[in-house]
Amino acid sequence: MKNVIHAKCVKCGKTYEATPNLTNCECGGILDIVYDYDYIKKSLTKEKLKTRPNTMWRYRELLPVEETTPDTPLRVGWSPLYEADRLGELLGVKKLWIKDDGQNPTASLKDRASAMAVAKAKEAGAKIIACSSTGNAASSLAGNAAAAGLRTFIFVPERAPKGKVAQLMTFGANVISVQGNYEETFELSKKAIDKWGWYNRNAAINPYLSEGKKTVSLEIAEQLDWKMPDYLAISVGDGCTIAGVWKGLKDLYAIGFIDRLPRLISAQAEGCHPINRAIAENKPWEPMEENTLADSIAVGVPRNADKALMAIRESNGIVVNVTDEEIMAAQKLLGTTCGVFGEPAGVTGTAGLRKLCEQGVIGKNDTVVSVVTGNGLKDVANAIKFCGEPMKLPNDLDALVAEIDRRGLKTE
Amino acid sequence: MKNVIHAKCVKCGKTYEATPNLTNCECGGILDIVYDYDYIKKSLTKEKLKTRPNTMWRYRELLPVEETTPDTPLRVGWSPLYEADRLGELLGVKKLWIKDDGQNPTASLKDRASAMAVAKAKEAGAKIIACSSTGNAASSLAGNAAAAGLRTFIFVPERAPKGKVAQLMTFGANVISVQGNYEETFELSKKAIDKWGWYNRNAAINPYLSEGKKTVSLEIAEQLDWKMPDYLAISVGDGCTIAGVWKGLKDLYAIGFIDRLPRLISAQAEGCHPINRAIAENKPWEPMEENTLADSIAVGVPRNADKALMAIRESNGIVVNVTDEEIMAAQKLLGTTCGVFGEPAGVTGTAGLRKLCEQGVIGKNDTVVSVVTGNGLKDVANAIKFCGEPMKLPNDLDALVAEIDRRGLKTE
Repeated sequence: MKNVIHAKCVKCGKTYEATPNLTNCECGGILDIVYDYDYIKKSLTKEKLKTRPNTMWRYRELLPVEETTPDTPLRVGWSPLYEADRLGELLGVKKLWIKDDGQNPTASLKDRASAMAVAKAKEAGAKIIACSSTGNAASSLAGNAAAAGLRTFIFVPERAPKGKVAQLMTFGANVISVQGNYEETFELSKKAIDKWGWYNRNAAINPYLSEGKKTVSLEIAEQLDWKMPDYLAISVGDGCTIAGVWKGLKDLYAIGFIDRLPRLISAQAEGCHPINRAIAENKPWEPMEENTLADSIAVGVPRNADKALMAIRESNGIVVNVTDEEIMAAQKLLGTTCGVFGEPAGVTGTAGLRKLCEQGVIGKNDTVVSVVTGNGLKDVANAIKFCGEPMKLPNDLDALVAEIDRRGLKTE
Repeated sequence: MKNVIHAKCVKCGKTYEATPNLTNCECGGILDIVYDYDYIKKSLTKEKLKTRPNTMWRYRELLPVEETTPDTPLRVGWSPLYEADRLGELLGVKKLWIKDDGQNPTASLKDRASAMAVAKAKEAGAKIIACSSTGNAASSLAGNAAAAGLRTFIFVPERAPKGKVAQLMTFGANVISVQGNYEETFELSKKAIDKWGWYNRNAAINPYLSEGKKTVSLEIAEQLDWKMPDYLAISVGDGCTIAGVWKGLKDLYAIGFIDRLPRLISAQAEGCHPINRAIAENKPWEPMEENTLADSIAVGVPRNADKALMAIRESNGIVVNVTDEEIMAAQKLLGTTCGVFGEPAGVTGTAGLRKLCEQGVIGKNDTVVSVVTGNGLKDVANAIKFCGEPMKLPNDLDALVAEIDRRGLKTE
């Protein structure tokens, strides 16, 4: 890879050759891919991008893949960035955009990481990719691998919801339901990966995955014609996504495509916010309970805390925690004002933004992008609990008129 | 609209000025929009399309909207067309493409019709759109209208699944759950629309909706660089979609963008196939029971039968009926070979294609596009029933080795 210098441990600084099978540093720290920005500056121009495919692979010069590695088959990335004028006005900001990353093949931002895993597995000559997860990482891996003709072994804890298992089975994954908790599931996956040498799609140890995720901020910048907002709000679970977002922004700054960096807004659930607590108290992070319905960010022991904390601090970021009620209110707000249906974890960034607006931290002079990271169809059960009841009426126009009057609904 | 001549009844031939609020002909027949192809030929070129937005609105010259009518806000259309080489080989055809129209904002092809309804409602100066539906028409209307700042009144029968109602409520629709069957629901919606003059999004009487749907075949043609396949397979319910698909193809032929027309494959469920029965027996269509799990095409009384039957006949089309088991097998086949997760009705076209391949009707000299019309996340319950069980194991590598052996799974 002419554009990559090496991989470097974010903890001890040790460097490694960027081979496809890289895992953590021997010190236990996670690795970061270091690019040759001088080389990239010479080979990539804004003009060139205009003719590229509408997928994350339009940014190949900024991605850690060989020039000969093919684009992965599913259309991952280039999700829509909506001007959300009505919502922006409601919140009281100068300008607001919503990046709807639920509009990805398996309906979450995780498709970006899984597509990268598939590309690197192909480079490694692997035929099988494995991971342990019950959520969006698993379904995105299963879908992207199936499309590319790779097989998958996916380990899920026995409590995994049937719907999610069904999605994995439909994509043809070999699904192992482990009788035990998530830790035991992870252990069995590790033993199996060691035994059979499968390619490991695990954001905790695979340094390429956040490089896939960073394409979301590359896109935001390009879709805004390289004029960056003041803030970028996103939900945070294990930290890999916000770290990737920041990496993408720094890449663009380094090659001179953007001239300023937005401040990150890290939104976590009130019931599980180890990363935000570490920032707020300026201390190392410590595990927390996982008390939130936003399952995709219910991560008490974040795997990429180091990269995430660095990203938030470097950006002079803001942290904000929101209750489950605030999360579900944001889901409805995005639905009613933008026609965007996000899963609870997916709308947590917007919930956090709203709270900061109410607190006066962010206001009428500020421009903001809020990323929705997953589709609401992934978790209809919670939407049902919070969305309210429809009008229940007989086939009788008078009854309808009366009910509409009672509710004070506008009929014109 | 300089590109539209008038609207013409498909039954009696009477013509009407193409005003935004058009409904059925006074004879009861459905209207068809007639274009001025000479005008369109002069204003639209293939080259021009290359710089257009990646939405259905790239084809404005072929759409019945005023030049000043703005694009609707959500990113509807320009869904991916995948080369499905592995699936094509399995089925034994020369070349197969899958158009994944579940990759739309509210996850179905119906977004194309609802975006058109929103555009026409704006032209009509309406602030409220109404429809009666429990399915994709309702959710796509609610989402597209919310994004455009229009309000909706949506009538659903009381048996409507809670998840679907939740989606509507999240988009801020005024949802009326009618104590009665679908017919009574439709009646109350009609009375309310008459009373308050709301814009009517009902594919049975609004001639613009199939014009929105036709963008799916405009896209297929452009994505194939205007080289048409031998066949185009699609599931058929009320007939509006296949009629739209055919209209789009004829448009392109009329303006010289394509030089041949594919034959349509109309796939219906064995348990509900009034349109296919009419073709097979060469008789007028008659109502049928609705015995299929593919809810979006369980239409015993098709509302657009006339247009659909004409389309199938004109294209020298093929009809094929599939059982629910064949539908669910196609769902898994698309998942495992293409990484595409479609809802049961969405994959029925592929199920039909598979059956025709097995029967030798379609084979190794044929090229085919199969359209997946909706996302599998819309109906996870049926996927759960049919996808099979995962391996259930303790955290024990030996047990995993034994189970993998027993199942004969390849581990490399």
